Amino acid sequence: MGTPHSSDKMVKIVFTPSGRRGSFPVNTPLLHAARVLGVDIDSVCGGRGLCGRCQIICAEGSFPKHQIASDSSHLSAICATEIKYGERKTPLANGRRLSCHTLLLDDVVIDVPAESQVHRQIVRKDAEYRDISLDPATRLYYVQVAEADMHVPKGDLQRLTDALAEEWGLDNLSCDSGLLKILQPVLAEGKRSITVAVHKQEKIVALWPGLNDRAYGVAVDVGSTTIAAHLCDLSTGSVLASASLMNPQIRFGEDLMSRVSYVMMHPEGAEEITLVIREALNSLFAEVAVEIEASVEDILEISLVANPIMHHILLGISPVELGGAPFALTTDAAVEIPATELDLKINPGGRIYILPCIAGHVGADTAGMILSEEPQEQDQMTLLVDVGTNAEIVLGNRQRLLACSSPTGPAFEGAQISCGQRAATGAIERVRINPETLEPRFKVIGSELWSDEAGFSEAIESHGVTGICGSGIIEVVAEMYLASIVTLDGIVDGDLASRSARIIQNDRTWSYVLHTPANDEAQIVVTQNDIRQIQLAKAALYAGVKLLLDHMGTDRVERIRLAGAFGSHINVQHAMVLGLIPDCVLGEVSSAGNAAGTGARIALLNSPSRNVIESLVKNIEKIETALEPKFQDYFVDAMAFPNKTDPFDHLFSVVNRPPIKQLVESSGGRKRRRR
Amino acid sequence: MGTPHSSDKMVKIVFTPSGRRGSFPVNTPLLHAARVLGVDIDSVCGGRGLCGRCQIICAEGSFPKHQIASDSSHLSAICATEIKYGERKTPLANGRRLSCHTLLLDDVVIDVPAESQVHRQIVRKDAEYRDISLDPATRLYYVQVAEADMHVPKGDLQRLTDALAEEWGLDNLSCDSGLLKILQPVLAEGKRSITVAVHKQEKIVALWPGLNDRAYGVAVDVGSTTIAAHLCDLSTGSVLASASLMNPQIRFGEDLMSRVSYVMMHPEGAEEITLVIREALNSLFAEVAVEIEASVEDILEISLVANPIMHHILLGISPVELGGAPFALTTDAAVEIPATELDLKINPGGRIYILPCIAGHVGADTAGMILSEEPQEQDQMTLLVDVGTNAEIVLGNRQRLLACSSPTGPAFEGAQISCGQRAATGAIERVRINPETLEPRFKVIGSELWSDEAGFSEAIESHGVTGICGSGIIEVVAEMYLASIVTLDGIVDGDLASRSARIIQNDRTWSYVLHTPANDEAQIVVTQNDIRQIQLAKAALYAGVKLLLDHMGTDRVERIRLAGAFGSHINVQHAMVLGLIPDCVLGEVSSAGNAAGTGARIALLNSPSRNVIESLVKNIEKIETALEPKFQDYFVDAMAFPNKTDPFDHLFSVVNRPPIKQLVESSGGRKRRRR
Repeated sequence: MGTPHSSDKMVKIVFTPSGRRGSFPVNTPLLHAARVLGVDIDSVCGGRGLCGRCQIICAEGSFPKHQIASDSSHLSAICATEIKYGERKTPLANGRRLSCHTLLLDDVVIDVPAESQVHRQIVRKDAEYRDISLDPATRLYYVQVAEADMHVPKGDLQRLTDALAEEWGLDNLSCDSGLLKILQPVLAEGKRSITVAVHKQEKIVALWPGLNDRAYGVAVDVGSTTIAAHLCDLSTGSVLASASLMNPQIRFGEDLMSRVSYVMMHPEGAEEITLVIREALNSLFAEVAVEIEASVEDILEISLVANPIMHHILLGISPVELGGAPFALTTDAAVEIPATELDLKINPGGRIYILPCIAGHVGADTAGMILSEEPQEQDQMTLLVDVGTNAEIVLGNRQRLLACSSPTGPAFEGAQISCGQRAATGAIERVRINPETLEPRFKVIGSELWSDEAGFSEAIESHGVTGICGSGIIEVVAEMYLASIVTLDGIVDGDLASRSARIIQNDRTWSYVLHTPANDEAQIVVTQNDIRQIQLAKAALYAGVKLLLDHMGTDRVERIRLAGAFGSHINVQHAMVLGLIPDCVLGEVSSAGNAAGTGARIALLNSPSRNVIESLVKNIEKIETALEPKFQDYFVDAMAFPNKTDPFDHLFSVVNRPPIKQLVESSGGRKRRRR
Repeated sequence: MGTPHSSDKMVKIVFTPSGRRGSFPVNTPLLHAARVLGVDIDSVCGGRGLCGRCQIICAEGSFPKHQIASDSSHLSAICATEIKYGERKTPLANGRRLSCHTLLLDDVVIDVPAESQVHRQIVRKDAEYRDISLDPATRLYYVQVAEADMHVPKGDLQRLTDALAEEWGLDNLSCDSGLLKILQPVLAEGKRSITVAVHKQEKIVALWPGLNDRAYGVAVDVGSTTIAAHLCDLSTGSVLASASLMNPQIRFGEDLMSRVSYVMMHPEGAEEITLVIREALNSLFAEVAVEIEASVEDILEISLVANPIMHHILLGISPVELGGAPFALTTDAAVEIPATELDLKINPGGRIYILPCIAGHVGADTAGMILSEEPQEQDQMTLLVDVGTNAEIVLGNRQRLLACSSPTGPAFEGAQISCGQRAATGAIERVRINPETLEPRFKVIGSELWSDEAGFSEAIESHGVTGICGSGIIEVVAEMYLASIVTLDGIVDGDLASRSARIIQNDRTWSYVLHTPANDEAQIVVTQNDIRQIQLAKAALYAGVKLLLDHMGTDRVERIRLAGAFGSHINVQHAMVLGLIPDCVLGEVSSAGNAAGTGARIALLNSPSRNVIESLVKNIEKIETALEPKFQDYFVDAMAFPNKTDPFDHLFSVVNRPPIKQLVESSGGRKRRRR
């Protein structure tokens, strides 16, 4: 970026969309004018016409509001540098100019497109709640470093930091000691032109000869079952590649507690279980890098969420203390360290940021959910729920936030359910039961057709109907309740066997046949025990919510966001019929998508958000459900559908409340009707 | 340390040597009173009677100045904790009390012995210039950490930092991520009692269960020839063990430039040469630790000085750029990093501090010399010289400091001298020549006798006379000049062969026979070429000094300190006769001992000194001798003894100036007398 040429004539410039305006001498470079006015225009190369980040468009026409007749002829003609840039990279699109090499000749209105802004907004999609403002922790800067000079005896590192201070205003930079050995070779290779990556405007963490404008980051969500990684371009915020794999720790135990037990029983277990998770992350990093034909060395940042046990295992901390009361975390603070300290293979100077934990059962994944959902910005009393083996529950608004976890067990994930399975092709995911005939219809993952629609059998022929996934379980149990097949106490009414062949006896209890395959494969059945497992799980979740409401001093939730894969797929009305979530206006209940993962992505792309979540987490009131005397009562009441004591008026203003019918299992297995 | 018991009666207390005084309620613990008054009393255990650092002595008698009749009965009786301390460690010496467990009963004068002070002075010895105030960067703190508690769901790290903040006022501590995995096991082993090492009151770098009061540091001086390490107790400052070894890089070349050449010619050379220096350091650390029956894990700090080439090699930086103009350092800043980053094996959380370099030829060793000698605190115009293969020269006072290096070559170390050798048993180190008879007498390392004293032959029988070391060379050449055997231009006067059989011809030049062994070993001879080598070396040094004097705008040095092994051994009068150092009052010329190594020790034991030297170095004016047009003229003038133009009036007010006699070597090898 040159400095303005001297001229007597002043011309007017207005930048949109910022609206910033000023007057400059003729021949002022546009990028210079933008800098003076504080207009947000990106640049890696510092105005050398190399990076193409500073593109702008000249508005054409009359702007009476600004008293400007703007025209592209009011800018200097396209210059050799711009043509060379087009040849080297991609030709400038119609009307686009490099603002660093375009001079003001007369009054203009200049539009700065979103992709030329440093702090551009990244538009989020679907379930995601708000856009992200791009402001990554690690940024690239291109500089020309002074030649070594015996008359000015200082180190080349000092020459580099002097150039960064002068050109980019980066003062007091330190440098990773590992870079010292490559500094002079890189300076030589780049003929004293060099691109540096600077972390948090504090520390030089990577070096490249000449111009490098590839800087990627990876947002990682380490779940108990699945690990997902999204590679983002740190200069645009867009997700360029995604990959996921099963958490390889599953071989040490399906659920978290069995993994903790494994560590307790095997002296080398803690190191082993840490090693496999780190290896899994490294393979994901390699996979997403390869997908965009980049190297893992182009990855400069990792942002990661995980539950407390995964969080500790990743850090190399034995999770044994988290396996029992008092569930003592080694640390709940956010961790921001070189990725090499965790043996993660990205750029050797790359950093990892792990979001803070909240409590022994409420981890960085919940922090991610909060970062994504921003309950602290809501006026409405908002409930966030992430349902997994543990449910993480956050309640509050801009006044106050409470959090707890509740041990729902794996029933919602299809485990411990007789015909339960993971959400995969062939799994029943939607169910409706006709209350008159007790006949079901359902949908199976892999087909858009309902089971009573023409062509359904053909559509599912290749995979068949293999079981019921988590969202299917919710629906079938809710529909069974609405059809009075189960009572509000959760008992399958065997008397209905006389009305429908789908009610079948199974030892002393009754089951509901959801599907009988044409071939001789096993029937898909919902048993009395399946209903019990769902009751236990949903009662635990609801009791946790009730405790938070108590501590909040309210009995009303105004808005509910369901996070996680399970939360994305369940029908909120069915969930409410079961009493899995509290009563609320149905239109205020929605899915939050993978909010924890989105939180990781926000922390990756917007560095100030790290401070936001770190200070927020400190002020969240943590409720330990196991210590609350009322938990047991709330749990017992919540065993009923939807609840023994809470009325669920909003729900039953739109859904028919089934007639109250109570059955009690007799000791002899018979039922006594108490209607 | 308890809190004061409530009592109405107030008693007076005066602490010596600080003189701080105050009144406290009866039953106030002495340590508490000291803290309130800001009296410097050490403690690691925080007043629990475990560490024994807070010992004081009650003065007995009347102190009219303070209006106190002090008596040991005015303190509480020796308590069980003090007795237990004596049994567990060493019994309290006569009159000693643990101030944390001794209560005030009546007026007393309390003496705080030096060893109980945190910031005690370490008395330096011999050539060392000032005492060191103890204030190491890494300190130990013992705390009791709260039990994990489900009602207060936070991490154990936060419980630890809370305890450190409350008990020791250490706020906002961070923690090395590598410690997270051992925190909970250490807390368990110590039953929640733990000792932590804190670096710069910022970061927890090590943990031990229970009380640990062993904290060591190592001061290291990496010379081209020798590496020396001194293990210091960070709590007392005393040197507990020392070790040194030959720099193993000697196998890549005797002098620095041949090592640089080795790296230039061998692709793997840079890594190889780094590896051997790091291995050498690790073996020294192990050696000094074993010597005091400690482990290298007890070493928490390293402070290190080195010349620029050794400095870069140690950091893993190729020294190739330092091998030629413009002698570009990669960095001249001080380096303070975890020792593991350099593969140094001390405590895994231990830090290394490397002093800053000054310029391409003026390294961290010179910074160490400045830190030790404090020219910036002098009113006198002070010259510091460290003579080696390069001479580092610093000139200045509290107004201004200048520095340069000058390529003296290895002559002063006995290399390139026909009978030269390192300073070792058998080397001639002192010489006197009778100007009338031209007969010499000398002393040999290994004997206190002069060669003309009775018993000399027997004393040296076992080793003989093997050569001349650096200080011997200085003396013999100076004595030859004073005896008019060489002219002021440095020519051996062959005419004297008629007067003495010690003047012998050697091809076209003349030599002086210093010693003829009884057996048929070779004679010890000083040749014309030896004189030339000394002239070249001393002229380079002197020309450097002259340039600094020019830049300083003075022609007068008021005080000279000679650093390094060579500087410690040479006779300053002889050095001045040669014109190796400028004219000065002889009483103001002295040895500074191993000033660079002392500087490393100061930086080790007094952390604020690191800031002092870092900011000082930035303000030192660096003179590049190679760029100075006058260097050549000064060099030529300085070839003469002591100098062609400078009068050396101070010197010749106490030493007889030899008659001026000039010989010119003719082309035919004959001499023309120009007296």
